[in-house]
Amino acid sequence: MRILISNDDGIHAPGIRALHAAIQDLGETHVVAPNVEQSAVGHAITLSNPIKCRPVEVDGNFFGHAVGGTPADSVKLAVEALLPKRPDLVVSGINLGPNAGISVIYSGTVSAATEGMILGIPSMAISLATFTDPIWDTPARVARDLVPKLAQNGLPPDTLLNVNVPNLPFDQIKGYRVTRMGRSRFVEIFHRRTDPRNNVYYWMDGEMKQFGDGEGTDIKALEDGYVSLTPIWFDLTHHAVIQDFKRTWEAPSS
Amino acid sequence: MRILISNDDGIHAPGIRALHAAIQDLGETHVVAPNVEQSAVGHAITLSNPIKCRPVEVDGNFFGHAVGGTPADSVKLAVEALLPKRPDLVVSGINLGPNAGISVIYSGTVSAATEGMILGIPSMAISLATFTDPIWDTPARVARDLVPKLAQNGLPPDTLLNVNVPNLPFDQIKGYRVTRMGRSRFVEIFHRRTDPRNNVYYWMDGEMKQFGDGEGTDIKALEDGYVSLTPIWFDLTHHAVIQDFKRTWEAPSS
Repeated sequence: MRILISNDDGIHAPGIRALHAAIQDLGETHVVAPNVEQSAVGHAITLSNPIKCRPVEVDGNFFGHAVGGTPADSVKLAVEALLPKRPDLVVSGINLGPNAGISVIYSGTVSAATEGMILGIPSMAISLATFTDPIWDTPARVARDLVPKLAQNGLPPDTLLNVNVPNLPFDQIKGYRVTRMGRSRFVEIFHRRTDPRNNVYYWMDGEMKQFGDGEGTDIKALEDGYVSLTPIWFDLTHHAVIQDFKRTWEAPSS
Repeated sequence: MRILISNDDGIHAPGIRALHAAIQDLGETHVVAPNVEQSAVGHAITLSNPIKCRPVEVDGNFFGHAVGGTPADSVKLAVEALLPKRPDLVVSGINLGPNAGISVIYSGTVSAATEGMILGIPSMAISLATFTDPIWDTPARVARDLVPKLAQNGLPPDTLLNVNVPNLPFDQIKGYRVTRMGRSRFVEIFHRRTDPRNNVYYWMDGEMKQFGDGEGTDIKALEDGYVSLTPIWFDLTHHAVIQDFKRTWEAPSS
């Protein structure tokens, strides 16, 4: 089994090191990840600039390739140019911070898995639901448990597995919950400032707001101490409204 | 009616000028857009850097605000900080190049509309399906026709309207088709180079591949000379597979 490991926190982040350590003996692992943090880059790709790529060592041993681009760039480049053969799985993470609720659409971690999925490879994103005092051991053990299941079961076409892990000691995790993406999101506040030459700039800030996330969502599962597993797909069509739309929008203009 | 106009080709691009000219007398319009091209940025936001913002004039008159960030940044900043009141509509475009098939997930143009939608505002992205010899008059007239319909009909919750226009003279357009997102996509090729100091870098290149896009897709509608209208939503959950997933993934590990 050949596993491509990537992330969006960058190749030097503790989360990708923990992931690599946890799953490296499950198969032939390859690490290809951004050279610096790429959080909240969404599903960006680099078309107008060259993409640099250099080997990275850890403790004197080759660890992986650092890519001067986004998570999606890293996975594309790995599969199409760097790896000797096509990987059987793509695993992205472990992200510091949850990728649940609406923030999934901004997530570079999920983006790496999305790119794997687009290339037809079973892909998983894994994130730890905390920004402080991460207990890496827990998502590492979850990844070690899920990777063989992913290899065995595969995934439906056009679907990736988005995994979020509560920041609890492993023995306090209650189990797995298959969930839907919740609706909670950051609500932004902009702080207006002026620089020494009197140019205006803003800092984006904000706070997480709950929007009625109830039973069945990723956010609720995390609150309840479960690992959330959300099937995410890239068909963005709102199929349920197409028939209504035909009546409204295909009618000739008056 | 208050309309926020944005895009991803940047505030100086001909497409946003054509859009502004076409709809400015339909209401109170505000232009807030990236200062430079932001194509293929996906749904990125700027958290770790300040976001600069300056007024832009055209022919000596105030035209809008140029934002040193992404399309999503521009819409967030416009709604939360720059506009005197909340807009009734967000219109993003006119993009040079189609945003159909899988490329929707990389699209900055769609991202601006997604941000409007997340903020609860009826939002539309409009793109012209060509990279050369654009006939701006056609999508401009389409926008002028659709904006009042959008104001009148609104959109279902969490749904935006993704519009693609064939690059044909207006009188050769056959009408509107409500479509689903197709599966065609760029297939990447990476060109490997070395710089004068022998560092490796790559250029991402590729070509559009058709993946069986048949009746009902955005790409087929464009080929047939129709304007495609795709309802896009941001719930990425693959709801249809959740029950199956529960059986597979919630079972205790052996």
